[in-house]
Order: sequence, then C-alpha cells, then structure tokens
Amino acid sequence: MAFIDLNSDVGESFGNWKMGDDAAIFTSVSSANVACGFHAGDPSTIRQTCRDAVAASVTIGAHVGYRDLAGFGRRFLDCSATELADDVLYQLGALQALARSAGGEIKYVKPHGALYNTIVHHEVHAQAVVDAIKAFGEDLPVLLLPGSVALAKAEQAGLRGVAEAFADRNYTPEGTLVSRREANAVLHDPAAVTENMIRLATEGTLTAVDGSTITMPAESICLHGDTAGAVAMAAAVRQGLEQAGVEIRSFV
Amino acid sequence: MAFIDLNSDVGESFGNWKMGDDAAIFTSVSSANVACGFHAGDPSTIRQTCRDAVAASVTIGAHVGYRDLAGFGRRFLDCSATELADDVLYQLGALQALARSAGGEIKYVKPHGALYNTIVHHEVHAQAVVDAIKAFGEDLPVLLLPGSVALAKAEQAGLRGVAEAFADRNYTPEGTLVSRREANAVLHDPAAVTENMIRLATEGTLTAVDGSTITMPAESICLHGDTAGAVAMAAAVRQGLEQAGVEIRSFV
Amino acid sequence: MAFIDLNSDVGESFGNWKMGDDAAIFTSVSSANVACGFHAGDPSTIRQTCRDAVAASVTIGAHVGYRDLAGFGRRFLDCSATELADDVLYQLGALQALARSAGGEIKYVKPHGALYNTIVHHEVHAQAVVDAIKAFGEDLPVLLLPGSVALAKAEQAGLRGVAEAFADRNYTPEGTLVSRREANAVLHDPAAVTENMIRLATEGTLTAVDGSTITMPAESICLHGDTAGAVAMAAAVRQGLEQAGVEIRSFV
Amino acid sequence: MAFIDLNSDVGESFGNWKMGDDAAIFTSVSSANVACGFHAGDPSTIRQTCRDAVAASVTIGAHVGYRDLAGFGRRFLDCSATELADDVLYQLGALQALARSAGGEIKYVKPHGALYNTIVHHEVHAQAVVDAIKAFGEDLPVLLLPGSVALAKAEQAGLRGVAEAFADRNYTPEGTLVSRREANAVLHDPAAVTENMIRLATEGTLTAVDGSTITMPAESICLHGDTAGAVAMAAAVRQGLEQAGVEIRSFV
Repeated sequence: MAFIDLNSDVGESFGNWKMGDDAAIFTSVSSANVACGFHAGDPSTIRQTCRDAVAASVTIGAHVGYRDLAGFGRRFLDCSATELADDVLYQLGALQALARSAGGEIKYVKPHGALYNTIVHHEVHAQAVVDAIKAFGEDLPVLLLPGSVALAKAEQAGLRGVAEAFADRNYTPEGTLVSRREANAVLHDPAAVTENMIRLATEGTLTAVDGSTITMPAESICLHGDTAGAVAMAAAVRQGLEQAGVEIRSFV
Repeated sequence: MAFIDLNSDVGESFGNWKMGDDAAIFTSVSSANVACGFHAGDPSTIRQTCRDAVAASVTIGAHVGYRDLAGFGRRFLDCSATELADDVLYQLGALQALARSAGGEIKYVKPHGALYNTIVHHEVHAQAVVDAIKAFGEDLPVLLLPGSVALAKAEQAGLRGVAEAFADRNYTPEGTLVSRREANAVLHDPAAVTENMIRLATEGTLTAVDGSTITMPAESICLHGDTAGAVAMAAAVRQGLEQAGVEIRSFV
Repeated sequence: MAFIDLNSDVGESFGNWKMGDDAAIFTSVSSANVACGFHAGDPSTIRQTCRDAVAASVTIGAHVGYRDLAGFGRRFLDCSATELADDVLYQLGALQALARSAGGEIKYVKPHGALYNTIVHHEVHAQAVVDAIKAFGEDLPVLLLPGSVALAKAEQAGLRGVAEAFADRNYTPEGTLVSRREANAVLHDPAAVTENMIRLATEGTLTAVDGSTITMPAESICLHGDTAGAVAMAAAVRQGLEQAGVEIRSFV
Repeated sequence: MAFIDLNSDVGESFGNWKMGDDAAIFTSVSSANVACGFHAGDPSTIRQTCRDAVAASVTIGAHVGYRDLAGFGRRFLDCSATELADDVLYQLGALQALARSAGGEIKYVKPHGALYNTIVHHEVHAQAVVDAIKAFGEDLPVLLLPGSVALAKAEQAGLRGVAEAFADRNYTPEGTLVSRREANAVLHDPAAVTENMIRLATEGTLTAVDGSTITMPAESICLHGDTAGAVAMAAAVRQGLEQAGVEIRSFV
C-alpha cells in the first residue's frame, strides 16, 4: 500500500498577530513544522500549537530559521557558522521544552524560509544546520529540497535526509521548482494538484510544467495553510490521496 | 565541616556587547547563573559560557528573566501568568540544549532582576515560574530570597527552595535587604564582607546594619562580577572562606 | 452645526503579520492613530499607512507605546521616566520622518494600550509622555481619557488635552468605563451605539450602563478596526452621525 | 591652510551594555556618527550622546544600519529596497528628534557596518539608502568609501558624497583597503599612522602597503573608539595633525 507524509507550517502567530488556520491544517497533515520563535512563534503560541499537534496525533518538527522577526525569516542573513549553529540549537532546545510539556517531542527538523533556500547551495550554512542537529544529540531527520547541499551534508553526518515536494508548485523538466518570478510558478487548481500528488505518492513521479513526467523521490508533500485557498487545497489533497488509497502518515 | 555555595551571574554578553569577567568569576564560584537570552545572552555567548562552566567544574543554573533586552530584565513587565510560564519554559529548554551540547546540564533555576524581585511578593508571577519549572519536568531547585512568596510556592509544588544571601548587601535587623535607596545598602570592604560571610557559612548568622546579629538560613551566597571591584570582592570572599576551612561547593 | 472627530488605530501590521482593515477604517475616521514601531508597525507599514492617511485626508496622530512587540504594548512596563520619555521621543521622530515623506505630518499624540491606561493614574509615566512631546518641540495635542492624570499634566505643560469617548464601551453613572471584567463592558449593537454617539456629538451626553444620562466632554470618539464587526460598527457610527447632521472632522 | 574632518562612531551602548569611550572620542573628532537604534543605541543613549556632541561642538551624523541588534549591524541582511529605504528613513527621523531635543541636528549620514560595506557594490541597497536620504528631505551629505557605488548614486541624486579614509587601515597600491584577512590589514603604530594622515590632509596622498604613494581624495578620516588603544590612537592623530598646522573641522 502506498503512503506519504503531508507537512505544513504552523505556530507562526506572534503575540497579538495571528497567522494561518492551524486548527484546519491539523486535520489535513501528518507532520507540523512548528515555528521556534526566531522567525515567528512566541512561547505561548508554540506551546499551544504543540498541544494541538499532540491532540491531533500530528508529528512535531522544528521549523528553525534566521533570527529575523521583522522579515519573518525570509531574508538571507549573513551570520557566521557558529552564530547559525548556536541559534538553531537554541531554537531546538526551546521547542523541545515546550513540546515535551505538551506530551510531544521534536521528531524532525525543517529549516524555514531564507534558511531553507540558502542551504540548497550555501555550504557553510548547510553544515551549520547539520552541526546544530548533531549537537542537539538526537539525530533528527531533516526535511529538505531534493538535491540540496544540506541534504548531502546531513547524510554525510549520519542524519536521515528526507526529500519533500511542493504540492502547489510547478516543476521544470529537470526537477527543480519553476521560479516564483515566472507566471506559472504556483498551481491553483486543487483537482490537478491532487492528481499530481497521487501520482507522486503511488509512482514517485509528477507532471512537469512542459507536460513531461519526471521522477520525484519525495517522502513528504509540503502544503500551505496561510490563506483560505491554501487550507482548502490542503484538505482537497488529503482527501484525494485517501480516496486513491494512499495512507497519510509521518515519515518518522 | 562547614560548606556553602557561591553563585554569580554569567553569560550576560549580547552580540558585540561584552559584560562581566566570566573567566575570573569561574575561578571563584561553585554555581553559575547563566543568562538564557531574554534579558541577556545570545546563543553563542550562552553556549561558550556553558563550555567554560563545564571546564571549571561550576554548576549551571538557568537565569531566567522577563523578555526585555532593552531593560536587561530589570523592569517589571506585567505579563500574564501563561505568558510568563511559557517564556520561562522556552528559556529553560533553550539553555538546556546549549548546556548539554557543552557536556553540562541545568541543575537549578534562579530568576533574574525584576522577576527575582517581583516574585518575592507577586503571587501570580511566583506561581508561573514554579509552573514552568514543573512543566520542564526535572524538578529543579530554585534559588531565591529567604521568605519570598516564590520560595513558599516552590516548596508547595514539591521543588526544593534554596535561600541565598547577598555578600555585598547590608541587612536590616529584620533580615531583609537595606533598600538601594539608602546610602549604606551596598558593602564595599572585602575584609568586612568576607568576615560576615564566614560567619554565615559557619554559624548561619550575619551582622545587620545596626550591628545586631541576625539568623540567615542561606545555602548560597550571591557574588557579583560586573565590575572589577566586584570580581576582586568575589575572589576575596572565596579565599577567606577557604582559609576559614569552609568548603565551597554547589548546593545540588 | 455639531461636529466631532472619529479616531481609530491603524498601521499595526508588523512584517508578514497583517492586522486590521486600515483601508476600510480610513473611509470612516477623521483621525488615524498610527503605530510607531514599539508596540506594532514596521517602517514600511508605517510609511504606507501615512500615504493612505494622506490620500484619504485623514489626520495623522502618533500612537506611541511601551517597547514591547511581543506584548503589543498591552503590558505595563516599569521603565524609568527618562527611558519612557526618550522612547516616546524616538517614536515621534521616526513617525514624523515617515509621515513627511508621505506628504503628511504628526498632528497629535495618542498613547497606546498599557501606556494609555497607565497614565490615567501613573504620575511619573504621565509626565514622561508630556515631557517627550514638549521635547519634540511641536506642542502637539494629546488624545486621552477624560479625567486622567496625563490630561492634567499635558495642560499644565501648555499642551492641548483632547478628551475622547469610546463608542463601543459602556460607562458607569460616574463617567468611567465599565471594567472589561464585567459582562456588559462592551456594546455590540451598532444602532444603540450610533444613537449614543449622536447624543454625545450634539448634546455632550451619553447614556450610562444604568440608563442614566451623563455628561461626557469628548472631542473625539474612538472606534475600533481590528475585527470585521468593529469595522462595520465604525461605518455605522459615521453614517449615523452624518445623517444626524453631525460633521466629522479632526479636532486639530 | 590645510584642514580635514575626523569622524568616529559613538552612541553604540545599548541598555545596560556599554561600548566605547565616547567622552574621550568627543575630544578628538569633529564629526560623530551616532547610532540610530537598529544596530546599536537605545533612545536614552542616543539622546545623551547628542547632548554630549552638542556640548563638545562636534557635528552629528546619522549612523544608519541594518535591523540587526544581535549582529551589531555587521551581517548582510538581504532586505528589499523598500524595506531598507523605510528602515533608514525611520532611523533618520528617530535620531533627528533626539538630536533636536539636545540642541543639535543631523548634518550627514554614514551607513554602518555591513550596510557600509554592502553599498560599495550593491546597487539596490545603495540606491535605497540614497532614496531614504532624499525622502528625508534635507539633502544630507553621505560619508562613504571612495569609489563606492553608493557615492556615485548619491551624487547622481544631487547629494554631496564625502569620501573618507581609515586612519588605522593599510591600503593597496590601487587605493583599496587591504583585506582584514591579511595580517597587515590594520596599522598599530600611532606615529606612523599620524604621519600618514598628515600627508593625507596636506597633500591628498598616503603611503600604501608596498611603500608606494597613492592619491586619496578623502575629506574625512575615520578613527575608532572601541578600545583603549583606538582612543589613544585617535588622540595621537588629532594632536599630530594640529601640530602640523592642519585644522580639524567638520566637512559640512
């Protein structure tokens, strides 16, 4: 029987500012990337999010990012390897305490935003993230873009690298994401997206932007929850996968 | 044989701003109150401080505070019980990860600055700190002012409350600190301070501001390290205690 | 002909977090309390808000607050008079530069959240706010709760104090706000609120919680814009006032 | 008669963390680059620094930087042009209010740290800084590295670009700074530095790392004040220049 993980970002509210419909997302995903306070998420938001994840039997991952609340972690920050590793380790520890107080546990790490994009190619920052996870001492799997430098470095360090695909993004025939600068970077039709993701889960392939079929060795599918449309898309993808007989379950 | 703990604040640098002579302090104390990032201490400073504490065989405590870098945690912040408990728990987890990566472990908690002073009497914030420690799941001792509300609440919750005295502060005949608004609040003579602390360690008493002898059931003595004079005072107190045959050792 | 000012808080988004429907509020109010970055509002949000205020011919006020993004300025912070005055002055200057670049100008000051509530009675913080405005050098009017210590101190310093009423709050027969701890603190019926505000604008009175008529010497009415219901209420109040022949105009 | 400006960074303390010996530096320089709160400097520090600058008849410049207290503005932050321009404008306004309350006025702008280095070549960030100054509406001169992209863009926008030299840095024969990665990047001998700076002020040349004489069209010399050695160097350079008959005066 085919199976796949569905992951989404949660816990990204901050103080009085609310973001996302986490309650709805928890009904669709098997893995929750929980903000750790450096790009989003205050301690009370994070702790409540962990309680909700535990209640929904959703696996908790650490969504670590650059220290940049004003930029929501979406801006590259040229910190040193030491600073980055220590910032990531700090975030892991903070989330772990909040997760455990909720009866949960960090089961994987997914870098956020600019950090995620940077370590596709930035060797020093990629290694720093890996070093932080090793220093944390729990050999957590890392959720990353297939082919990224960080994935290779994680595996060299003895960590499990888990590749993910993006449900609502178009792919080039070479298997990379169509740039957001292109008009057709993002997919909006839930039916087409769902069909594509069923193929991913059952055959390990998906349809690229030019109609060709490409191999995509992803163990997880990233869904978004930051708009009403995204939440509806997430629900549609989950329902479509289940109806196609694909089991939705965490990769850990 | 008499023994006592000596504690001091460390890890209070932040980024490019340096504070205190931690290296010198580590030669004088048995317990280090390590900043956790909310009043002071960036992750790299904290991690290095934990390494230094481990190298010096000094016990690591979590110096948790209000979220107020601009005020160094010295300003009361009227946060809710939930916010405070979650902020403290976040700090404990963050420090724990950094301490463990250095081969150490949090062994106690000491609230910092305005939080320390507030929970002498503020029931809600006192309970929130206790709740955070309980939620952390390790039943850590709490270092506090004798007679404080927080000490009582810690003990009600099954935590060990550890009372401390301040080496360089004058006490009233009733055993409370002479207010910093008074001219004679702070003691400056290392010899007199040392003599007083020897009496504290050996007899459990000290000389109050009016010359009377008061009982002070402290298991730890707080020393400062933020000025050259304070560092010298700390060294003098340690040396004096050792020469008087008092063993300096952590209370845990 | 009767006239009154309508004010509301705007510019409270921060980075990726959006708050309030400022575009809708600008169609209802004559005065905009623009966040200054300490409780909410990043520079780009503030500048765009000023452009929108200028385009809508809405008067710009400085919504200054305690330095507490995590608490949205809603938590009392026990800073010193100097710190508070300098923090307020910093905020005034920052907003002034952004307002001027948009073709606008700060025309009044309204303290925000916990600062607003604190200086109803806290003499030191009230004076610090007044001192900051005087130091700013433009003798701006201050929008405050009637009867507050800050209003008296503003007037003693030669500033114009402007009293405001809250459209959606119930008042005691003594003219103070019914505490939010009471079930009937907040009014939800747009028709009743509008009727009350017409009376305020035309007669200087409103109906208190016990049905009695009280005098309320307010020159401005505060409306909220942080929920869909609040935005609808604001539109209803404006429409009702205009239909009753009350001119909506800034108090400056 | 020859003359030159001497500038240094001041106001870089933050809350309880002190940095630099500003009082000493004010006796050596004619221009003070005052931190604006984004890389360093809290409002009370900034205001007091402005008072001290006014008392010492030192010209006030705005030392604007990336929003990065944890990194002291020394880390490139990949913000958008809009974000950067608005962040700079916010800082200019904030400093202006504090400077004016002290009887002073911003007379020039000097970008700080990573921003300074970035806009040597980064066209978008260079333009954003220029745009912010233009939006501020006072056509302030900008203090920059000779040959930098930002200097060209400032002049294209009708601003005065002022080139500066670094007293304690070695230069290549091509007139660029010897990289800090090289052992001889920094000069330590006050006598040699002073001699070099006298030549700069009187002839517009200095001795490069290979002993060759290069042209350096600098109107200002940057001195440091963050260490005891730097403060002594600054005093030596000033004294040497004055003894050589060079007048020390602001470039504005």
